Amino acid sequence: MQKGQLVYEGKAKRLYETEYPDVLVVEYKNALTAFNGQKKAEEQGKGALNNKISSILFETLHQAGVANHWVKQISEDEQLVKHTKIIPIEVVVRNVAAGSLAKRLGLTEGHQLGQTVVEYYYKDDELGDPLINEDHIKLLNLVDSDDLARMKDMALVVNDCLLDCFKQCDLKLIDFKLEFGYDRSGELMLSDEISPDTCRLWDIETNEKLDKDVFRKGIGSVEKSYSTVLERLKGGVSNG
Amino acid sequence: MQKGQLVYEGKAKRLYETEYPDVLVVEYKNALTAFNGQKKAEEQGKGALNNKISSILFETLHQAGVANHWVKQISEDEQLVKHTKIIPIEVVVRNVAAGSLAKRLGLTEGHQLGQTVVEYYYKDDELGDPLINEDHIKLLNLVDSDDLARMKDMALVVNDCLLDCFKQCDLKLIDFKLEFGYDRSGELMLSDEISPDTCRLWDIETNEKLDKDVFRKGIGSVEKSYSTVLERLKGGVSNG
Ligand SMILES: Nc1ncnc2c1ncn2[C@@H]1O[C@H](COP(=O)(O)OP(=O)(O)O)[C@@H](O)[C@H]1O
Ligand SMILES: Nc1ncnc2c1ncn2[C@@H]1O[C@H](COP(=O)(O)OP(=O)(O)O)[C@@H](O)[C@H]1O
Ligand SMILES: [Mg+2]
Ligand SMILES: [Mg+2]
Repeated sequence: MQKGQLVYEGKAKRLYETEYPDVLVVEYKNALTAFNGQKKAEEQGKGALNNKISSILFETLHQAGVANHWVKQISEDEQLVKHTKIIPIEVVVRNVAAGSLAKRLGLTEGHQLGQTVVEYYYKDDELGDPLINEDHIKLLNLVDSDDLARMKDMALVVNDCLLDCFKQCDLKLIDFKLEFGYDRSGELMLSDEISPDTCRLWDIETNEKLDKDVFRKGIGSVEKSYSTVLERLKGGVSNG
Repeated sequence: MQKGQLVYEGKAKRLYETEYPDVLVVEYKNALTAFNGQKKAEEQGKGALNNKISSILFETLHQAGVANHWVKQISEDEQLVKHTKIIPIEVVVRNVAAGSLAKRLGLTEGHQLGQTVVEYYYKDDELGDPLINEDHIKLLNLVDSDDLARMKDMALVVNDCLLDCFKQCDLKLIDFKLEFGYDRSGELMLSDEISPDTCRLWDIETNEKLDKDVFRKGIGSVEKSYSTVLERLKGGVSNG
């Protein structure tokens, strides 16, 4: 597979063309950003860890029947994916109160939610990725209502699948963010990444944070936390 | 009607008991607040203007079949209402981009929306009345889903009715905020107030602002603007 022209560089990944028009190389960067780009750092090894974690999770979701863009891992920090047209909505699924939900509703971080909460954010860095509702989505014509409903359904299936998968390696899935897109044939599928950059993961016993909050809050080593997640995913439960 | 004990004092109104357990006196205050209480002022005559405007609008809505708490105006700055248990959700209906919607979605103020937008805000001063979605409402158990749907339907009927009513007096209804509650028999009904404090109203020709934005932005006289609204409502079109 030939790595062609850089198509797009974001905060966490670079996308390159390949000889196939519908396939991209995703290169996972070591860069970490938080608070809409205000806090920045480089963390050696982070890209490779997220590439591997994301590959395992997309593979798991594929086996669970969730259509997604992942094709295969091709190097330490690169994977092949289907080129999709990204819908500019971040779909957030929450099981436990943390981050902006805790702040918005005045809930204590760690409070187990009585029901799963799904939120939509408008993927627009300049606007600070604001929370939006279904009327805003219609107004901006971001995606049609049927596909929005399918995205929500898929996000809930992803949640069930990942809750289970992480539980088996002694991790609590607090919340996570998904992006969806359309491939060349118009099929709606999960895209982007699923990694400790986009999920909150806590140790099931100690509640130790093993995700990007380690960076946001400046508590502990990103490399160590993400490695723990990868090791547990590879080996099943490894801390017993 | 005997004015009894003060039940509650808010930013814009005082509620008093009466000899009837299900009826309150609402006294409209001259106080104006904005930006979640950070900007404050007193405006002579504002309470009376809002009392009269709100009375006209609730009466109009009653005739249009929208259940609401209003009973009658009893003095310059007082009206009788049914005592309701307020649902802590502010329902906002928008026809034209302005205020927080323009900011949230990056729209120009004055942009005519391609469709009516309904938003829910959690009525909680400490949290700054945050935007919430239906999952948040379920999570916090603020109102059951059926009644939320009825509130949305009622809000859209109110919008149709008020758009028409204001158009007849050469005013453009940009957006407005509603509150709902349950009376003693459990009937869901529109409550609170409908006034230039809770609606954005622009002159249909000049786009001159005739609502609380005059105060928020410090442009012109509140008393003059609200008087214009009242005079037009009383006289039909008065600026021709
Ligand atoms: N399969 C795909 N096809 C095309 N673009 C994708 C695909 N998966 C993810 N993207 C996009 O790649 C871009 C780069 O990712 P990232 O560095 O995380 O960006 P951002 O700074 O927007 O978070 C993002 O805009 C993301 O939506
Ligand atoms: N019919 C009613 N019965 C009981 N409470 C009401 C009724 N209508 C409005 N209220 C409540 O009266 C309170 C006072 O109004 P206001 O001064 O506007 O308060 P706020 O500072 O919360 O905006 C508000 O909490 C409002 O929800
Ligand atoms: Mg990203
Ligand atoms: Mg009020």
